[in-house]
Amino acid sequence: MALFKSINNKAKTIDSSGFGTSASNYGGRFVNKNGDANVRKKGIGILERTSWHHFMLTIPRWQFFGIIILFYFLANLFFATIYYYIGVEHLNGIIATNNAEKFGQAFFFSVQTFTTVGYGHINPTGFWASFVSSVEALTGLLTFAIATGLFFGRFSKPEAYIKFSENAIIAPYENGTALMFRMTPFKNVNLTDAEARVTLGLSIEENGKMVNKFYQLPLELDKVNALTLSWTLVHPITEKSPLYNFTAQDYGSIDGEILVFIKVFDDVYSTHLVKRTSYIFKEIVYGAKFNIMYNQNEDDSVTILDLQKLNSFEKVNLQ
Amino acid sequence: MALFKSINNKAKTIDSSGFGTSASNYGGRFVNKNGDANVRKKGIGILERTSWHHFMLTIPRWQFFGIIILFYFLANLFFATIYYYIGVEHLNGIIATNNAEKFGQAFFFSVQTFTTVGYGHINPTGFWASFVSSVEALTGLLTFAIATGLFFGRFSKPEAYIKFSENAIIAPYENGTALMFRMTPFKNVNLTDAEARVTLGLSIEENGKMVNKFYQLPLELDKVNALTLSWTLVHPITEKSPLYNFTAQDYGSIDGEILVFIKVFDDVYSTHLVKRTSYIFKEIVYGAKFNIMYNQNEDDSVTILDLQKLNSFEKVNLQ
Amino acid sequence: MALFKSINNKAKTIDSSGFGTSASNYGGRFVNKNGDANVRKKGIGILERTSWHHFMLTIPRWQFFGIIILFYFLANLFFATIYYYIGVEHLNGIIATNNAEKFGQAFFFSVQTFTTVGYGHINPTGFWASFVSSVEALTGLLTFAIATGLFFGRFSKPEAYIKFSENAIIAPYENGTALMFRMTPFKNVNLTDAEARVTLGLSIEENGKMVNKFYQLPLELDKVNALTLSWTLVHPITEKSPLYNFTAQDYGSIDGEILVFIKVFDDVYSTHLVKRTSYIFKEIVYGAKFNIMYNQNEDDSVTILDLQKLNSFEKVNLQ
Amino acid sequence: MALFKSINNKAKTIDSSGFGTSASNYGGRFVNKNGDANVRKKGIGILERTSWHHFMLTIPRWQFFGIIILFYFLANLFFATIYYYIGVEHLNGIIATNNAEKFGQAFFFSVQTFTTVGYGHINPTGFWASFVSSVEALTGLLTFAIATGLFFGRFSKPEAYIKFSENAIIAPYENGTALMFRMTPFKNVNLTDAEARVTLGLSIEENGKMVNKFYQLPLELDKVNALTLSWTLVHPITEKSPLYNFTAQDYGSIDGEILVFIKVFDDVYSTHLVKRTSYIFKEIVYGAKFNIMYNQNEDDSVTILDLQKLNSFEKVNLQ
Repeated sequence: MALFKSINNKAKTIDSSGFGTSASNYGGRFVNKNGDANVRKKGIGILERTSWHHFMLTIPRWQFFGIIILFYFLANLFFATIYYYIGVEHLNGIIATNNAEKFGQAFFFSVQTFTTVGYGHINPTGFWASFVSSVEALTGLLTFAIATGLFFGRFSKPEAYIKFSENAIIAPYENGTALMFRMTPFKNVNLTDAEARVTLGLSIEENGKMVNKFYQLPLELDKVNALTLSWTLVHPITEKSPLYNFTAQDYGSIDGEILVFIKVFDDVYSTHLVKRTSYIFKEIVYGAKFNIMYNQNEDDSVTILDLQKLNSFEKVNLQ
Repeated sequence: MALFKSINNKAKTIDSSGFGTSASNYGGRFVNKNGDANVRKKGIGILERTSWHHFMLTIPRWQFFGIIILFYFLANLFFATIYYYIGVEHLNGIIATNNAEKFGQAFFFSVQTFTTVGYGHINPTGFWASFVSSVEALTGLLTFAIATGLFFGRFSKPEAYIKFSENAIIAPYENGTALMFRMTPFKNVNLTDAEARVTLGLSIEENGKMVNKFYQLPLELDKVNALTLSWTLVHPITEKSPLYNFTAQDYGSIDGEILVFIKVFDDVYSTHLVKRTSYIFKEIVYGAKFNIMYNQNEDDSVTILDLQKLNSFEKVNLQ
Repeated sequence: MALFKSINNKAKTIDSSGFGTSASNYGGRFVNKNGDANVRKKGIGILERTSWHHFMLTIPRWQFFGIIILFYFLANLFFATIYYYIGVEHLNGIIATNNAEKFGQAFFFSVQTFTTVGYGHINPTGFWASFVSSVEALTGLLTFAIATGLFFGRFSKPEAYIKFSENAIIAPYENGTALMFRMTPFKNVNLTDAEARVTLGLSIEENGKMVNKFYQLPLELDKVNALTLSWTLVHPITEKSPLYNFTAQDYGSIDGEILVFIKVFDDVYSTHLVKRTSYIFKEIVYGAKFNIMYNQNEDDSVTILDLQKLNSFEKVNLQ
Repeated sequence: MALFKSINNKAKTIDSSGFGTSASNYGGRFVNKNGDANVRKKGIGILERTSWHHFMLTIPRWQFFGIIILFYFLANLFFATIYYYIGVEHLNGIIATNNAEKFGQAFFFSVQTFTTVGYGHINPTGFWASFVSSVEALTGLLTFAIATGLFFGRFSKPEAYIKFSENAIIAPYENGTALMFRMTPFKNVNLTDAEARVTLGLSIEENGKMVNKFYQLPLELDKVNALTLSWTLVHPITEKSPLYNFTAQDYGSIDGEILVFIKVFDDVYSTHLVKRTSYIFKEIVYGAKFNIMYNQNEDDSVTILDLQKLNSFEKVNLQ
């Protein structure tokens, strides 16, 4: 990490970032691009430090379906084995000439019980086969009860469908410059009452020790009533800004990070949603201007928002 | 759009509307009558910019049921085709004389598996038919798990059952006039802690460029403890109001829009709900007075709210 | 309604009650004992002004089960009729000697399809019987999908388990008197961050017209961090209180009403809950003192809250 | 309980604790370690004072499954008994030589109906057996509807996965001392916007009566933007602190209690969560310093939080 000239001392630090203040104990960026904190946990068992709710609701779809299919397969394998050891002669209707066929038909009987299809061309006789199939039917029903809950949980998980521009930019603004980035809702949602909070995180040397310092970056506008088009967040780089002394070179060489926190109300969920991201200094383009990303349609009756232009900017010279 | 005399310059604009500020890029009204923003999105694929949660929860009921029935039909068609190609001789109990009958019975076997009815008079033999029916039973159960979630999601979607008067009016008020419109809860709900925010949106010329300007319209009362009868929102048109200079003709010729935002707490959902609407200037009646819409019952023990009178007003002259 | 001497004019009225201001249009109490507004709606059809969500979630349990059982019976009656007209000869396995038996067995076949039990000793042959049973199985599954949602909705409906004392009292307080009533959580819940808002509603004559007037009643303490024992709400009747001039007789003869609004956070629901009630003047006891309703247990390790004492008070003389 | 020298009278008490103020009526600690209030209720029946929602959602997992399995067994026992009394000759397909076998097979037929497996090798004939199996299938489906809701409710119950250090400590701080304890999120969650409120509860003698007094303990920092690592709550023991006069001995002999209330926003639930705990004075270590519990990984790309060090401190001398 390059050293940098001492930070604008008119800038006021804040203590309430919630990230570690000892830079020499801290590794990597504070917040990942997707908004998660860049922290790993250890010291207690993985089971104890995993919230299954959060896990099952946030894994990718294919993993989720994979887990369900695997569980379905293993559960039936388990019960098939039990039927097999009880003896397939207690499963009426099985016609099998060898052990593999016997096990196969026990497996499919298990499936028919687990799913409660119960064709009945194979059916249990005797206490143990009947008993195990009773347990299996209950197990199956409870499994699908859980699966129903999981599906609904995943499906209805509140999520803020907001995209951020890939880059933040230093743009001309009034008589000076400003740090800007923008965001837009990209799905069929109605977002209102959006709030933004932007923080700068830096590791600096203080009394010979490396410490993390955090600075609130005041915005020209930190609330909007509705988030319908794009919203450009503007931090004017005034005399009081911690970014006041930074040159184009500094953004390339210093390990700083812009932490972004958005809170917004969604009509359909009827709740506030939170979305976070961060820009490390390497993702800041010095000297640029965002292009407008919406336009009226031909008959002037509706406004078209072009999502492809979210990160569209042109380079300008800052003197 | 007609030009209009310069707006009352004592009125203060606000920047936090969240709508575009460049009027020449903006088309049509800001907010549709139903409260959605009048914006269309393009630039990324329709799948990526669709929230299925929001889609399935907000489409009309007949479309929702149509999608379910269509899916049910197509899924069974798909599995029937597979059984047909595996060979209906692997489905015990099928008695068919021609291919159409064979396919038909495969289709109904598929239905019996997909729904887990499983009468069993038709049942699978051999590995492949058994395997496909295992997959189908799982598919069916997961489908109904999803359907259960969707039904519940639609059913329990928080919704503010509030109706607005069709028109806003300019009514006599104290020694001058006021912009008024009203709303009422129209279902068996208990709404409390209602808040209102009303904004005026106008396209005006500024330094030779068309820009959108937004003005907060202060209300005589912007909060009520309970929303039980009708609530008339009153913006007094004082010297400081952006509407101060407007004549009856102006409301007919100018493209202005009153944006309405309501937030209210519902007891049964135990959450805050949001409801929006807008009045374009053509929906404003100049010179009118709302009629009272509630009355006591015969024995004076309960108050009757007549929902039909929500938009009932009589014309008055404003001097 | 008895007339009463003019109200303390140091008391300040509020306009934000959300109840009608015209007393001659208003009938009965403002808020029912259970917290609902005492308002009936008319003017639009009952279907349009009913929220099924609110209806199904708030009806008593026996009505809810009654509706389910009735629906189950009617749906099977409907499908049985269709099978009967298609002809029970298309239902394999029916052994019936007369029409009543035929219909009965069609009915039970319908049940076995609707519930997806599908024993299969009766099973459909031919296109129409198979087709109708396909439709019925889908209908059955969707019905139980909805029922599942309803059960969950009823079960998990956020509810503030708070009981209020039946009476409010006028009690000695410091050097004067105060209006008091109390409440307590009565179930196994953890309630925190409770807030109270108390309003007095009165119909008075103003300029020859009967109008409803509302007065905020300031409380000695309107927030508590935790609601664990009883909470006595105390409105000191000072010179500024609208109740300042009221005598014991007035409470008996005047139609006033104390409106109570409580907001509280429940740990398990993780949401704020609202609870309302009201005391009409006839429910106010003039001259009384609440008895304390909790006590330590024998070994001083836990506090016992006696819910039976919620409305326990003793009469005292107010001079 | 030991008497203690009169409390620092510069400290300001608060009345809004929500706990009883009469110490002689109050038993044991105010808040249990797990955050529940230390109160038991009596006076109304256990059924009336139990919220089944809260009960089923908060009992341990094994009790929850135990209740389900027990219910499944009892329901089938109940229906089996009815079939047995109707007569197993009305259940086609039963082959039994004695009463125990008859009852057993009736039981398994009941299971097959309740779970809607319906193999059909046993099936009902005659009105009563058919009727009872119709009732049972409905009962089964509704039972699993409820179970589905319960599973989902348990699974998705919002919970703040925060652990507190076992001990609070009195640590050196600036030129004096401070009361400190810390907490950390211990699962795969993203917590933001955390707030803390810390209250001291003490029983003291006032005018010859034992009363409970509560004091807000102001924190050096009572809000953080993100709760990603450990958060140490620091109450500086200044001249105004109610703890100002306390010695090491006092913490051992006096019955005081530190009540902790945390509110935090969870991304996945999209809601605020509440977590409470308390430290009685015996759990306060006089003269200690917490060890830092996080460190960077080897390649400095991520920060590792060691959950085992949550309560790790070293003793120091306070002069």
